[in-house]
Amino acid sequence: MATLEDIAKALGVSKGTVSKALNGAKDVSSTMRNAVLEKAVELGYTRSIRRENGQKIALFITNMEYARPDDFGYDLVAGVRKAAEPAGFQVDLIPLTIQMQQETAYDSYMVQNQYCGGLFLGLSLRQDPWMKDFESCKTPTVLYDNHVSCNPNVTYIGTNNQEGMDLAIEYLKSLGHQKIGYLSYELHAYIYQRRYYAYLQAMLEHGLQSDPALTGSEHHVSDCLGQHLPRLLKQGCTAIICSHDILAHSVMVHCQELGLRVPEDVSILGFDDIPLCRYAVPPLSTIRQDRENLGRSAFHALTSQMNQVHVSSLLLHAQLIERSSCTIAKAITESL
Amino acid sequence: MATLEDIAKALGVSKGTVSKALNGAKDVSSTMRNAVLEKAVELGYTRSIRRENGQKIALFITNMEYARPDDFGYDLVAGVRKAAEPAGFQVDLIPLTIQMQQETAYDSYMVQNQYCGGLFLGLSLRQDPWMKDFESCKTPTVLYDNHVSCNPNVTYIGTNNQEGMDLAIEYLKSLGHQKIGYLSYELHAYIYQRRYYAYLQAMLEHGLQSDPALTGSEHHVSDCLGQHLPRLLKQGCTAIICSHDILAHSVMVHCQELGLRVPEDVSILGFDDIPLCRYAVPPLSTIRQDRENLGRSAFHALTSQMNQVHVSSLLLHAQLIERSSCTIAKAITESL
Repeated sequence: MATLEDIAKALGVSKGTVSKALNGAKDVSSTMRNAVLEKAVELGYTRSIRRENGQKIALFITNMEYARPDDFGYDLVAGVRKAAEPAGFQVDLIPLTIQMQQETAYDSYMVQNQYCGGLFLGLSLRQDPWMKDFESCKTPTVLYDNHVSCNPNVTYIGTNNQEGMDLAIEYLKSLGHQKIGYLSYELHAYIYQRRYYAYLQAMLEHGLQSDPALTGSEHHVSDCLGQHLPRLLKQGCTAIICSHDILAHSVMVHCQELGLRVPEDVSILGFDDIPLCRYAVPPLSTIRQDRENLGRSAFHALTSQMNQVHVSSLLLHAQLIERSSCTIAKAITESL
Repeated sequence: MATLEDIAKALGVSKGTVSKALNGAKDVSSTMRNAVLEKAVELGYTRSIRRENGQKIALFITNMEYARPDDFGYDLVAGVRKAAEPAGFQVDLIPLTIQMQQETAYDSYMVQNQYCGGLFLGLSLRQDPWMKDFESCKTPTVLYDNHVSCNPNVTYIGTNNQEGMDLAIEYLKSLGHQKIGYLSYELHAYIYQRRYYAYLQAMLEHGLQSDPALTGSEHHVSDCLGQHLPRLLKQGCTAIICSHDILAHSVMVHCQELGLRVPEDVSILGFDDIPLCRYAVPPLSTIRQDRENLGRSAFHALTSQMNQVHVSSLLLHAQLIERSSCTIAKAITESL
């Protein structure tokens, strides 16, 4: 692992200059600072960063709303903290903006801010400039629900979506449903692609009609409700799986507005098990992701990376949560 | 978690009888012993097992030869031990036979022998009676290179085979190879299925001919060499990936016996990076599995299971190891 001396020697400057540059001292020119940062990244200095009272890790979040108590990220962030802080790590929660990614390369940002590892939480990373950086970054990095192939320093962490869809379809099939539809957020995001293909494969494996015509995906929930939901109902779907709970809740409300009873006329199943599910009317059946333990496992994967154990992926088991939004299949009226 | 008292109460016997039965005392009838074992399993007593000086885990191995210093399992077993023993766990290495599986159900075996978790190493599990038990077992269990869906107590650990094949094909393509063949052990084993499909998908993704006709798989190496190798060479394969190093080594030797130079006439790439690779002539290029860290990670997954963190899969990154068995593509003589 590189030291300050290594960087100083490689650049032919003093160790003091390197130290000042890395700490952002004002009496070092920006040209020198950038040269030091670039050399530090090149030599893998990221792995050497230590703070006086422990180590700092950065938990980036693309949308701070995810970290609110009623949303997905809250327990996940809590899980990271519960594992990291007793182990002597400081966890900084950082809103991830496009601008900061455009201004500074990922490894440079991490060295500059003395982070020894990065965790990423959010769904829009596919459009973010740092996604490109993750293909070759040297910083130990864990992406929640996003996958980068062939960089040993990056881990994908999440829930086994294939298992989740297997559980969902096995359950609905056991209730007599044959034609099971699937509604999703747009398929640009890695995780929604995975779930979509997992749905098609699970339908196939359970001997049911595995057909993209029984699916619909849109960026806007309103388009899913306005265009795809009526189409799936007309095709005779007696149950609909949704890519995530918020969509499932909207679908449930919209079905009720259309005069359909949930679950008597149509069964609705979500994915994630966010707090909303328990309070929905009827309470939403869903596939649970174990969020707090995802956070703990993300921290484990990050420290594994720091210790040269290059975890490619770590997936937790999915779990079916039966509430009241699914019941025995009944033919939908054709009159919609 | 269940205690001795719970078992005693459920059966209406004394705690002493339960204790004796679990410890195999001879003054307890076999009927009583089986009743106690079954109740212990039913109540999830496995999770409560503690030894005086720590906890015992069982490392089952289907073929003890795997654990020899020159074979695959040696570093893996060492990795488990290096992680487990400092944490206060005793690791028992147990040869796994069909007979023991027929005699005792898996959970019962684990309770009876006071193991709080099981690790399985070996390739023939698909034919083993306990594979059925793994679908619903309550004991924390980690399977190396074998996958059981939907039981939260079972973890699949291994190397990312898709990434391994991506690295292999990207590398061979960069050397100018277009027609890349694939030879494999028979596809009954889970891991060989995974690698086979990973090969086909990686060929597709790299814009090369993804065709089962360019592959061959057999139980006996001699059949691979006698039947499939000449066929692939006749079809114009200038490079051949093998499902594991031992096969790759045999293929290399057989090519040389056929008068072909490796790698000038045909490039050969293995999978695993067992010690043999370094000493082969020429030294075998391969895809490395990080065996010692697989062992460490297996132990981590097992303790996660014990702490109710239900890991579904934990895969390490694959790594391309370039030695001397692959070089720039050259047309093979058609005269074979």
